[in-house]
Amino acid sequence: MRALWFDGERLRLRRDVPRPLPAPGEALIRTTLAGICNTDIELMRGYKDDFRGILGHEFVGVVEQAADAPAWVGRRVVGEINLFCGDCATCRRGLTSHCLRRTTLGISGKAGAMAEFLTLPIKLLHAVPDSVPDRWAVFTEPLAAACQISAQTHICPTDRVVVLGDGKLGLLIAQVLALTGCDLLVVGRHPKKLAILQARGIATQLSGEPVPPGADVVVEATGSPAGFAAARALVRPRGVLVLKSTFAADVSLDLSGLVVDEITVVGSRCGPFDAALRLLEQRQVDVESLISARYPLDEGPAAFDRAVSAGVLKVLLTVAP
Amino acid sequence: MRALWFDGERLRLRRDVPRPLPAPGEALIRTTLAGICNTDIELMRGYKDDFRGILGHEFVGVVEQAADAPAWVGRRVVGEINLFCGDCATCRRGLTSHCLRRTTLGISGKAGAMAEFLTLPIKLLHAVPDSVPDRWAVFTEPLAAACQISAQTHICPTDRVVVLGDGKLGLLIAQVLALTGCDLLVVGRHPKKLAILQARGIATQLSGEPVPPGADVVVEATGSPAGFAAARALVRPRGVLVLKSTFAADVSLDLSGLVVDEITVVGSRCGPFDAALRLLEQRQVDVESLISARYPLDEGPAAFDRAVSAGVLKVLLTVAP
Repeated sequence: MRALWFDGERLRLRRDVPRPLPAPGEALIRTTLAGICNTDIELMRGYKDDFRGILGHEFVGVVEQAADAPAWVGRRVVGEINLFCGDCATCRRGLTSHCLRRTTLGISGKAGAMAEFLTLPIKLLHAVPDSVPDRWAVFTEPLAAACQISAQTHICPTDRVVVLGDGKLGLLIAQVLALTGCDLLVVGRHPKKLAILQARGIATQLSGEPVPPGADVVVEATGSPAGFAAARALVRPRGVLVLKSTFAADVSLDLSGLVVDEITVVGSRCGPFDAALRLLEQRQVDVESLISARYPLDEGPAAFDRAVSAGVLKVLLTVAP
Repeated sequence: MRALWFDGERLRLRRDVPRPLPAPGEALIRTTLAGICNTDIELMRGYKDDFRGILGHEFVGVVEQAADAPAWVGRRVVGEINLFCGDCATCRRGLTSHCLRRTTLGISGKAGAMAEFLTLPIKLLHAVPDSVPDRWAVFTEPLAAACQISAQTHICPTDRVVVLGDGKLGLLIAQVLALTGCDLLVVGRHPKKLAILQARGIATQLSGEPVPPGADVVVEATGSPAGFAAARALVRPRGVLVLKSTFAADVSLDLSGLVVDEITVVGSRCGPFDAALRLLEQRQVDVESLISARYPLDEGPAAFDRAVSAGVLKVLLTVAP
């Protein structure tokens, strides 16, 4: 089959990759669409040194085979990305996305979705409601990550919240948090991206302009090591600083200041697919405006070049028409 | 009056310090006992570059004057250390210990308690129950700081909790957390200090010995920049890392790792005096064993030398017999 393959140095289309064989409990899925995420780009920059193979963890597809659950065959699905054992201490606690033996679709130990076919455990699949088109459903995974913030931290409608970052994830986070009724400000670098939020009545500001400090909650979604210090400066004493960025660098910071101001720092990663699909079905979040371009799978390397260029949001890969 | 004075370089006894005049709403307090805290030592090492004057924020004393509330005169008291305005955004939110205009007794902008007299707003005073002797009451402030952990973070009786650090604060924290019934392990460097906890049935271990990772809550109370990495390594995914140490150094850390493991980091400082006094009155916490030495105020510099020497816990200064 055809697949986008990262060999540790560069990304290329391969036509000779064997179609994956579903393990017991897994489905074989024919990929329809895949999305390029910043994590894919960070992986290619060495965020996880050991990654080699098929990239891609944002997808929508159709179940082709599901020996253990034939009712899934033919269904349009999205899938959670953390493959868990169900048996380790972390899984038994219910924290399956943190399974100590996990592999992660297209990120670590499991071939990804930028290919004609992928396999995934049936227990990780979610049926896509009929009213949600493929080009929206492919946003389920990052939208779930945005929903994870309010899954971990109580965002009150009375809170003043600042989101730093107007990338794809920042724009999804802002839209999800705005649904709480909170007093929200999004700070970014790109007027065109911020305009997507302005169109929904969300307050925005260009970075560099002064932001009043003392926010109850600050979400760091810049994707950059400098984001922490900027976020820290804005959060009030006893406030919450939510971290969403992953990048390949350590950051030096004043831990004593966190103690004196009694700041809570919350690391936040993958989130609830069910909630994300409900928001898409109810049309509470605009993902349409986040689509910058669509390329066929065969033009994957060009699609990645486009994805890293300035001002670009989501680039989709059409795998099956 | 006599007072221990830090001039930015060294600590000395002065006999010529004017007795402080209580401001409106303040009481004049005759100090009975004062405690030497690690923060005092850090202040002398430059933790707050600007500190000059009378050190000391742990005290017990007797109210000498209280023009606005004469019922307090003659009462034995301890006092909260953050002087707040009551009017800023943070105070109006109820977070008076984080007042944006605060001064802090013996730490920042307010003369401390290592003197024959101090002044403090009456609203910060707490009467000491008759059954609590002075030498216990002087621990109210650090014991309150220990109580602040469970004030901020829900410690479940089913949690596995690790406390790093067997200093004064670590020993108080361990005793308070043990009261929740949690599965507690304290890791320290001093067999004699750990023995105080062992005598109460609390499990301890010398640092260097392997600690099983995967704790639900890890409390970092080592007072050292290396403590964060040690604590981080022990906390489970989605666990809580409580920071109690303040020191004059930045720390370099892997923020992306906090995101991937969805760790919550909670900075924790001053705590509830009422709760601390209740624990002392109910004899739930052994502070007696934490007293290493007692010096008269006049021998303050020698008392500080003793306080920084290895293996020493609380050193008290007797101000009035």
